[in-house]
Amino acid sequence: MASIGDISGNEAALARQAEILSQPLTGERVMANAIRALAIDGVEAAKCGHPGMPMGMADASTVLWKKFLKYDAADASWWDRDRFVLSAGHGSMLLYALLHLSGYEGMGIEQLKTFRQLHSVAAGHPEYHEHPAIEMTTGPLGQGLATAVGMAMAERLLAAKFGKSLVDHRTYVIAGDGCLMEGVSHEAGALAGHLKLNKLVVLWDDNSISIDGGTELSVSEDPLKRFANYGWATKRVDGHDFAALQAALAWAQKSTKPVMIACKTIIGFGAPTKAGTAGSHGAALGGAEAQAAKLALGWPHLPFHVPEEVYKDWHEAGSRGAGTRRAWLKRLAKHPQRAEFERVMAGKLPEGWVETMSAYKASLAETKPKLATRQSSQKALEVLVPAVPELVGGSADLTGSNLTLVKGMAGASADNFAARYIYYGVREFGMAAAMNGLALHGGLIPYGGTFFVFSDYMRPAIRLAALMHIRVIHVLTHDSIGLGEDGPTHQPIEHLASFRAMPNVLVLRPADAVETAEAWEIAIRNTTGPSLLVLSRQAIPALRLVANGCKSARGAYVLAEAEGKRAATIIATGTEVALAMGARAKLAAEGIQVAVVSAPSFELFARQDAGYQAEVLGSARRIGVEAACGFGWERWLGSDGVFIGMTGFGASAPAEVLYEHFGITEAAIVAAVKKEGN
Amino acid sequence: MASIGDISGNEAALARQAEILSQPLTGERVMANAIRALAIDGVEAAKCGHPGMPMGMADASTVLWKKFLKYDAADASWWDRDRFVLSAGHGSMLLYALLHLSGYEGMGIEQLKTFRQLHSVAAGHPEYHEHPAIEMTTGPLGQGLATAVGMAMAERLLAAKFGKSLVDHRTYVIAGDGCLMEGVSHEAGALAGHLKLNKLVVLWDDNSISIDGGTELSVSEDPLKRFANYGWATKRVDGHDFAALQAALAWAQKSTKPVMIACKTIIGFGAPTKAGTAGSHGAALGGAEAQAAKLALGWPHLPFHVPEEVYKDWHEAGSRGAGTRRAWLKRLAKHPQRAEFERVMAGKLPEGWVETMSAYKASLAETKPKLATRQSSQKALEVLVPAVPELVGGSADLTGSNLTLVKGMAGASADNFAARYIYYGVREFGMAAAMNGLALHGGLIPYGGTFFVFSDYMRPAIRLAALMHIRVIHVLTHDSIGLGEDGPTHQPIEHLASFRAMPNVLVLRPADAVETAEAWEIAIRNTTGPSLLVLSRQAIPALRLVANGCKSARGAYVLAEAEGKRAATIIATGTEVALAMGARAKLAAEGIQVAVVSAPSFELFARQDAGYQAEVLGSARRIGVEAACGFGWERWLGSDGVFIGMTGFGASAPAEVLYEHFGITEAAIVAAVKKEGN
Repeated sequence: MASIGDISGNEAALARQAEILSQPLTGERVMANAIRALAIDGVEAAKCGHPGMPMGMADASTVLWKKFLKYDAADASWWDRDRFVLSAGHGSMLLYALLHLSGYEGMGIEQLKTFRQLHSVAAGHPEYHEHPAIEMTTGPLGQGLATAVGMAMAERLLAAKFGKSLVDHRTYVIAGDGCLMEGVSHEAGALAGHLKLNKLVVLWDDNSISIDGGTELSVSEDPLKRFANYGWATKRVDGHDFAALQAALAWAQKSTKPVMIACKTIIGFGAPTKAGTAGSHGAALGGAEAQAAKLALGWPHLPFHVPEEVYKDWHEAGSRGAGTRRAWLKRLAKHPQRAEFERVMAGKLPEGWVETMSAYKASLAETKPKLATRQSSQKALEVLVPAVPELVGGSADLTGSNLTLVKGMAGASADNFAARYIYYGVREFGMAAAMNGLALHGGLIPYGGTFFVFSDYMRPAIRLAALMHIRVIHVLTHDSIGLGEDGPTHQPIEHLASFRAMPNVLVLRPADAVETAEAWEIAIRNTTGPSLLVLSRQAIPALRLVANGCKSARGAYVLAEAEGKRAATIIATGTEVALAMGARAKLAAEGIQVAVVSAPSFELFARQDAGYQAEVLGSARRIGVEAACGFGWERWLGSDGVFIGMTGFGASAPAEVLYEHFGITEAAIVAAVKKEGN
Repeated sequence: MASIGDISGNEAALARQAEILSQPLTGERVMANAIRALAIDGVEAAKCGHPGMPMGMADASTVLWKKFLKYDAADASWWDRDRFVLSAGHGSMLLYALLHLSGYEGMGIEQLKTFRQLHSVAAGHPEYHEHPAIEMTTGPLGQGLATAVGMAMAERLLAAKFGKSLVDHRTYVIAGDGCLMEGVSHEAGALAGHLKLNKLVVLWDDNSISIDGGTELSVSEDPLKRFANYGWATKRVDGHDFAALQAALAWAQKSTKPVMIACKTIIGFGAPTKAGTAGSHGAALGGAEAQAAKLALGWPHLPFHVPEEVYKDWHEAGSRGAGTRRAWLKRLAKHPQRAEFERVMAGKLPEGWVETMSAYKASLAETKPKLATRQSSQKALEVLVPAVPELVGGSADLTGSNLTLVKGMAGASADNFAARYIYYGVREFGMAAAMNGLALHGGLIPYGGTFFVFSDYMRPAIRLAALMHIRVIHVLTHDSIGLGEDGPTHQPIEHLASFRAMPNVLVLRPADAVETAEAWEIAIRNTTGPSLLVLSRQAIPALRLVANGCKSARGAYVLAEAEGKRAATIIATGTEVALAMGARAKLAAEGIQVAVVSAPSFELFARQDAGYQAEVLGSARRIGVEAACGFGWERWLGSDGVFIGMTGFGASAPAEVLYEHFGITEAAIVAAVKKEGN
């Protein structure tokens, strides 16, 4: 029987460790040992956590932060800093120790002492917003790497726009074996190689240990060869050899390709028995082992105590970039594009775009186009893309279906980053993660398209965007059985519900061209999380014949009031609003008066006051209509409400046949209203 | 500006096509042209679809189906047939044409004529269950490949168990560029290479075209090198050269590694202007181009007409395996393990397992263990794994956390498939897809573990399992904020709702050891879709003190009735049932009597009759308790109900602190009940 963590002993690792530890202590090793000691202490205090990774990567991180990383601990938000992403987020104590030692405000020793406690800045995994120098939330493996690709893309795009004197920095990533096993490492690695993102440098913590034991349990590939095949420059070094690490990082600075450096490390380096085993990965070492580790490392200090001279060396590292930052500030002050650069980096929207959109909406109300909402979205983009220059679009190889590309947008390529469109390839998850990186970097508002059903592939990245409260915009077309013949694998049924259930996500399903324009306005203004524009393949008539304000901003509103007392209120979203309007007309012809409520966003409607909600929903019986499962609709329909929609997966047939087949029709709405009459 | 599909002309492809078409027609080419003609006709009749892929891969498919694939069109369900998976599922007409031409029942010419119409067997994408020779539902890219890895694993596992005389077949896959761009291709490819699944053969339709245009828009890697790095044998051939294709497939039969053959093809082969361009990928060629294509191919027949002599050649191919099948049936008849083999392949459960579980549950009722439900799950597995030999477990590198491994299970490796456990590595999506393949192959019941939050990574594969109605069991531990310090990236909040919204998925969140055992019983019996066992990290007391039947099978039941008239009904799931019971006791001490309903599965409860539902839910005010978002709970709580749970993401802190912090406590339940009293 194979048992858990049975890579016992790991004699080779312990022998190598002994050899290293027998060498005289250098200043760099002492700096690294400070990281190790703090990681041990933090995890011991919390009685849980992951000491193995920080202890293994302390040496490589020390070389990076002491000699290469461009940062100034005095200003975490310096726009031209290098980005540092801990993709192996479970090793969070590594990051907290680095921030503490190098002198960042807001990461004092008391923060480290409260590691993994409520309200601590030092959470179990690095959390964006907890500290300005935490570049992103990490933990779900592979995503730090994939998001960093987006950050590195942002650097290239902005450098092409504002010039090297303002934008010239690298993105460093520490990734673990787990990150490289994840599928998203393929999508991200291939994309970065294709775009030759040479200022992206990944340090792979090559410790050959995963939770179940040695990586030989499940891995046979050499990731370096894989990344070389993607177009990366690769190198393998002893992760405990300072000179080798320094040489590799110096080499990385000159690369014309993205760089992966495999740092061969001993997980839990310093722990006398657990080093080199899965035993040091995800649990406190325990008092005795912790003590013995410090002894072995030559670290005779009390828990959470760092000697002054070690702080001094670290603070020197932390202020190494101060001069560079000051010089940059001077360049910025004199830069002709200063105002625009500051505007986009601060995430402020340009002047005039609201007026431009208003004029566009007014023109729609006049022309009353019958369009699929994906087409309306493209028309909105034709207005927005020139008006909001920080928009960067793209698609996961469905450009012509998502209609995400408009005139004036060049596709980015390794040779040309004076571009505003990304051909992400058939890489939905990689796209969504890269979009997170574009947004996190600052200076850009990313949007990207795929079919709504493939939002499932992107879900882990959308969740991270929601957790981080960042502005990314997903253009999700082919939003229901209305896509027709491609059938159930391509027909989203449960996706509206599944994202409505996710905190901080704004789901927008507009009903016509005006609502689609409003959805774009709302999404661009939404700085607290991802916005999902859920759009139709099939054409629908214009319903908002007067472009009176941004009605969608309240989430739901009365599109057509009943003539007289409401016999019922029909609440619908997206393409089904037209059905509701059709049913309303039929009922009116029979003398039955109903109101139609268009509800492009339940999240926004839920934020309205009770008075407005009651006014919109009314006291008459409610009928909900949406070509999707009704899960979650009960909230709005009340106990005597009726839902007309899907109860299972779709089918392959023309759209109109499917609507009839599944009973999502004007006739069904009419019947439901009349049934109430009885 | 880069425009869509701007790889115009594609002169090289057209020149090469002209060269090939100038050669004399061979019998094989005519057979292949029959596929092309039917693909053209099917798509023209439907006025939509994907002709390009079938036209490009017709030659390779003809060689495979004529010379290598082990099948007998007279018996689609022959257990030792080779499996054929069309991972590039949009090219469904290729599969339908192959099934039709080779003589399968149930795929007559009338089926092809109704391609993409309601109730047609020939749906837009291949749908499992529509025809017994459709091995799986495909369309979401990458998943056919990843699922085929599971099928090939099943073959190895069953061959090790029943011997080569019963189990000795290959799994063939046709994958497109999109499949190989998807991240799951990495997870699946790495796993297959690691396990040396040498009877897996992938034909890559290497046509260099994706929807947005040439693959050079977004791809720079050579997938063959990547797969070679995973441990695959690889070869590149001209996909229109019959001799080369035959040689490559003959070579594949002898491989000691999984095989990938890049078939360099011209997409839309035969179309005079659209061949070699994205224009032939996803739309009907149009009357004139279709006509001209047939002319160029030397196919002068009416639409949907195949000459008798071509049928004859194809039927010969389709019956080529008849003798082999008969010989296999003879071997089966005499095989000492015949009964067991037939039992597992038919998906029938063994005798005695129910009694064994009953005895186990009775012992639990006696010992009343206080365990985390993940521990209870492991205890149930200790009973089930010996009792149900077709169970095959695994974990995505969280074995010690998911507690999915029990005594007597060896880990599968390239050298040893006499095994019942798979170390999937940090590859959640790849695991879920492989589990689908294990289930689809037949003979095995797969279960696999990861943290519940990472179900997001697996979601596309769980959806396919739900669409296909297959029995896979996901062991999803660390199911709430109860996991504690790892924080919000690891705390599922919306996942219960998101899967409850998905059709055909059974979500089971048991409350104690007895319910966990019941959940396993239900999951093993559930042959109509995936079951999700949602299990706690933290320990909870025993609540079911008498193991009286499988109460969980009704989805929800009264765990503790009120003493007298119900002042309220508290409905809870999983770990929160204990809180509800605690609150009930506190209220009783104050003379307030409430009932507690344990609701391990809302899907099962929704299937009960209205009378039972009313009896359980009662007419008193209802209070729902679940450490998750309340989305979808309204259905069960009614208009005056109260939900106690999460309203946003979690935080990093010890579990008990978090429950207090988020107000999911006995005190909160007590207060909610009392508020009702006012």
